Amino acid sequence: MKETRIEIENKIEIAFLPKNIKREFTAGKTILQYASEANIAIDGNCAGAGTCGKCKVRILEGNDGVPDAEERTKLSERELKDGWRLACRFKPQTDIAVEVPVTEGASDRKTKLGGMQGSILPANIYRKEYISVDAASIANQVADLDRIAAACGLKDGCKADGGLMRKVPELLGMSSTLTVTIRENEIVDIESGDTRNHCFGIAVDIGTTTVVGLLWNLVTGECLGVKAVTNPQGVFGADVISRITYASEARENLKNIHDKIIECINGMITGFSESCGIRTENIYEITVAGNTTMSHLFLEVNPRQLAVSPFVPVFCSAAEGVAANLNIQANSRARYYLLPNIAGHVGSDITAGIVATDILEESEIRLMLDIGTNGEIVLSGKGRAFTCSTAAGPAFEGASIHQGMRAAAGAIEKVKIDEDVHVQVIDGTTPTGICGSGIIDAVAQMVSNGLVDKTGRFTKPEVLRLNHVSEKVASRFRKGERGVEFVLVYGDDGQDVVLLQKDVREVQLAKGAILAGIKILMNQLSVSADELDKIYIAGAFGNYIDIDSALTIDLLPDVKRDRIVSVGNAAGMGACMALLSTEKREEAERITLEIKHVELASCSEFQDEYLQAMKFKRGLI
Amino acid sequence: MKETRIEIENKIEIAFLPKNIKREFTAGKTILQYASEANIAIDGNCAGAGTCGKCKVRILEGNDGVPDAEERTKLSERELKDGWRLACRFKPQTDIAVEVPVTEGASDRKTKLGGMQGSILPANIYRKEYISVDAASIANQVADLDRIAAACGLKDGCKADGGLMRKVPELLGMSSTLTVTIRENEIVDIESGDTRNHCFGIAVDIGTTTVVGLLWNLVTGECLGVKAVTNPQGVFGADVISRITYASEARENLKNIHDKIIECINGMITGFSESCGIRTENIYEITVAGNTTMSHLFLEVNPRQLAVSPFVPVFCSAAEGVAANLNIQANSRARYYLLPNIAGHVGSDITAGIVATDILEESEIRLMLDIGTNGEIVLSGKGRAFTCSTAAGPAFEGASIHQGMRAAAGAIEKVKIDEDVHVQVIDGTTPTGICGSGIIDAVAQMVSNGLVDKTGRFTKPEVLRLNHVSEKVASRFRKGERGVEFVLVYGDDGQDVVLLQKDVREVQLAKGAILAGIKILMNQLSVSADELDKIYIAGAFGNYIDIDSALTIDLLPDVKRDRIVSVGNAAGMGACMALLSTEKREEAERITLEIKHVELASCSEFQDEYLQAMKFKRGLI
Repeated sequence: MKETRIEIENKIEIAFLPKNIKREFTAGKTILQYASEANIAIDGNCAGAGTCGKCKVRILEGNDGVPDAEERTKLSERELKDGWRLACRFKPQTDIAVEVPVTEGASDRKTKLGGMQGSILPANIYRKEYISVDAASIANQVADLDRIAAACGLKDGCKADGGLMRKVPELLGMSSTLTVTIRENEIVDIESGDTRNHCFGIAVDIGTTTVVGLLWNLVTGECLGVKAVTNPQGVFGADVISRITYASEARENLKNIHDKIIECINGMITGFSESCGIRTENIYEITVAGNTTMSHLFLEVNPRQLAVSPFVPVFCSAAEGVAANLNIQANSRARYYLLPNIAGHVGSDITAGIVATDILEESEIRLMLDIGTNGEIVLSGKGRAFTCSTAAGPAFEGASIHQGMRAAAGAIEKVKIDEDVHVQVIDGTTPTGICGSGIIDAVAQMVSNGLVDKTGRFTKPEVLRLNHVSEKVASRFRKGERGVEFVLVYGDDGQDVVLLQKDVREVQLAKGAILAGIKILMNQLSVSADELDKIYIAGAFGNYIDIDSALTIDLLPDVKRDRIVSVGNAAGMGACMALLSTEKREEAERITLEIKHVELASCSEFQDEYLQAMKFKRGLI
Repeated sequence: MKETRIEIENKIEIAFLPKNIKREFTAGKTILQYASEANIAIDGNCAGAGTCGKCKVRILEGNDGVPDAEERTKLSERELKDGWRLACRFKPQTDIAVEVPVTEGASDRKTKLGGMQGSILPANIYRKEYISVDAASIANQVADLDRIAAACGLKDGCKADGGLMRKVPELLGMSSTLTVTIRENEIVDIESGDTRNHCFGIAVDIGTTTVVGLLWNLVTGECLGVKAVTNPQGVFGADVISRITYASEARENLKNIHDKIIECINGMITGFSESCGIRTENIYEITVAGNTTMSHLFLEVNPRQLAVSPFVPVFCSAAEGVAANLNIQANSRARYYLLPNIAGHVGSDITAGIVATDILEESEIRLMLDIGTNGEIVLSGKGRAFTCSTAAGPAFEGASIHQGMRAAAGAIEKVKIDEDVHVQVIDGTTPTGICGSGIIDAVAQMVSNGLVDKTGRFTKPEVLRLNHVSEKVASRFRKGERGVEFVLVYGDDGQDVVLLQKDVREVQLAKGAILAGIKILMNQLSVSADELDKIYIAGAFGNYIDIDSALTIDLLPDVKRDRIVSVGNAAGMGACMALLSTEKREEAERITLEIKHVELASCSEFQDEYLQAMKFKRGLI
């Protein structure tokens, strides 16, 4: 006899605070997984492996069950007592209310686009014509569409697809005045009434962490709005490697992670639609820039090869097509344009940055840096251009640093050391960690004050006195569970923020990789630091780090301070330019053919340069 | 209290013979409607109004119910006794077996494409490359797609849509040898193995009555197959006006009639796939030509305006797009191209005919005729070109003739009168009616033998003798229910085939309209009949009519016999040329801009020309 097995599904309700979004789920998964299904972003770097300890959430109701070993390692006694758990470990069995720390502060920062106010260049892809169509008669038997085309000044007839033609009889039946949307001499939309002012496009910069969208009027070339949101693919891992791993595991995963970014873009479109009062049908064009992995995932192309040597992408070329084919919710005839990538680790975000800064067109010798988990470097001059990518690691994003965190409320963002240590905290709250700019400041200050030597080691107590370090500062070195640590801030109840010897090593590895990459490119072009006319620092990183600190720790070549320029979100700006101008698209495509990609892994001199570049040359001892 | 009403659906089964296709339906509709749902073509001209009497079917089992008034008028006693009913009137209430007269003979004739054997011109839109892709390495980090493009000889990278890129990793994972399909420097397909010989396109000539499809190899430019089927839109009416009426009545109707032609094209694709052993995924392009109404219905554009003055189409221009958007079952990236129309009554079939005959390129003065329900005329010379359309009426297709029928088995197709009347019948069976070529022959023979006078009247008995008409022939005139009639064939049981005085009048109206149209264009170009170097007769009509007969009844201008050329299905041939060559598409688009359309309705001299043209100038008296 066959047994009948009855499975009883345990339904639970989770309330996500502070927005109080309530959703019902079947018990058995982690809070991180439920949050992903509910499209709520939770920070994290290890894709749920439980190793990074970044996905802390606070259970306000229903904190049942015993924290597991990982949770007990990653969370302090105090945190556990206050209800903090790791979202990737805790599987609720009853209804719960969970507070998810808001990190939108980090995203907001990305929306500051260097110099991108008002119009940036003449828009030339679209035009909209408000026309009055002559009535047909025996003496004027010209077809409806041809009379419309003639009224728009389109010569020699016009082509349009069947779907558009279908609308014409009804529209002309209602009114002889129409608005026609024209894309490079092709009619792409016909509407009744005067909608000339409604012709929009969206430029999207897909960052691994943050997605920035910019709404533009495609006719006037005006920027109408900016939105930045946490990349919802983060639930599959904070870095590209975790996402590639996830996406490569199953065909279904690839679709999931692709859907996440499309949902994110659609969410932005809905957001713009509401906040700017526009109709999604009037969005005709979407341009996208992102690193090569983000580019692959945007098109649902398997990024597997990008994680293994020789790191060859499936495609580098620009991709374009009908946005609806990717389920992007805009006009049914809207098109997408993905800027061309350069190599496996030099993506279309860098291409966009080159377009935005126009560095290849200049007669000077110029360097562009985009620093994140990878540092991408472009060097141009003498009619040639080189690029490379270095695995800087996530130190500057706070990830591999013991108490590192993203640039959100509670993060130490500036550090000054004199007789004592002074810190500046984002939003002025109690400090809970340190972000990238704070880390660079802290290390720079320790180097210049003799707390860290040229090799990166914490200075021994007897030498501190020789270096004229105050007693107050010297006393901040102490022996902790993880070896010697330097206390940046003494917190209440032992919640101190400290810097470990290991943290300084992480900074050395990161800055060394970047400087070595720069040196290799300078060797290729045979230029010295003196000859660099400009260094452009792209990305949010450039907006927030203290350039003097970066020079102090030798993150950058030894140039005069005034040659270094922060250019903000150059990738976003390049995507905007490609949205507005055919010439900028052609330029982007030309760049990827002209620029030479240098693979550091195959460079014999890289190891030597790297070892040199890890040192702190400006250290006192 | 509320009453509960129970509706019992009466399910019936209909067996359609001779193919014995059985389908179940809910009772309540006519056989014509059921046949449409089962995709079985039944002849008919009046869209089920019951006025044309052409949709005769024979009920072999289940002939219950009393024939209605229309059936009793349109069918003879004998036919009613033998089980014949009108498909548009009979609503079966029980299972029936119904024999549908097969008229595929008419379609088969259309497949004879004048001179189109083997290749017609070099194919230049597609190429397929069988390539071996170099493996990637640290020294060769070029993206997969770029290595593929390079192996195909595509310079400067290439563009492809996301869907295509998605396939690349899997394909390259299986094998480094691939076949790439390239359309004008764009990659549109990538397949494993060597599929160079599998690159197909279909040219479709959508006639109101018959749809002809031609399968081509887009690389070699070879024609691989021809299919002709009855246009399934016929269930909504035999002529364009009935179909426009139907399509304009409701949005749903427009979709229905559009779906019919798409199903028809998909049926052809399936047919070619089976008979030629090809995969539908290897069909990359579909070109279409048809009259302006067929063009509108192909794109699901409301043709309402084409039935009312000033007969202005929604579009004339060429239309192109993704075939899948029209639900055409081919490669997912396959494209359609609809040739441009010229005016409301001069469609893309005429444009295609002009391309095929190249008449605008010639230094001679040339006339092209395409005769159907409408007669379309093109006159070219002295560097100018004119076109017009005349409402010839359906006489030459047998429709407005008492015993007219399509050119199918049983139709009289040739008539010779000497001492008696001699006829030739299609398939040599018992004659049941007369088709277009037979009608022209019959009238021509009656004119030249003095049985019909210059004004078109049947000759009076006393004059017949003066005209040396034999007694045997003279005795064939008799008084019938519908006035005086001339017996062409004496059948068994009184099933004679006769020609009525009214039938001769119909021929006069038809040929007069055509000749008057020709004259108007000749006036525009200031040429006489002597100056016409060539007359091309396009369409199946030109293949089957006796040209001498056409000259005898003054259907054509008075030119020497050897200047008249039948060019077969020029529309189909033009669609084929556009399938293979970009230049031919450009030529088609240029033609529609250069040619001048003359609207006969606004021509002051048309009425006079028409009255003159109705006469039989070669009549004896």
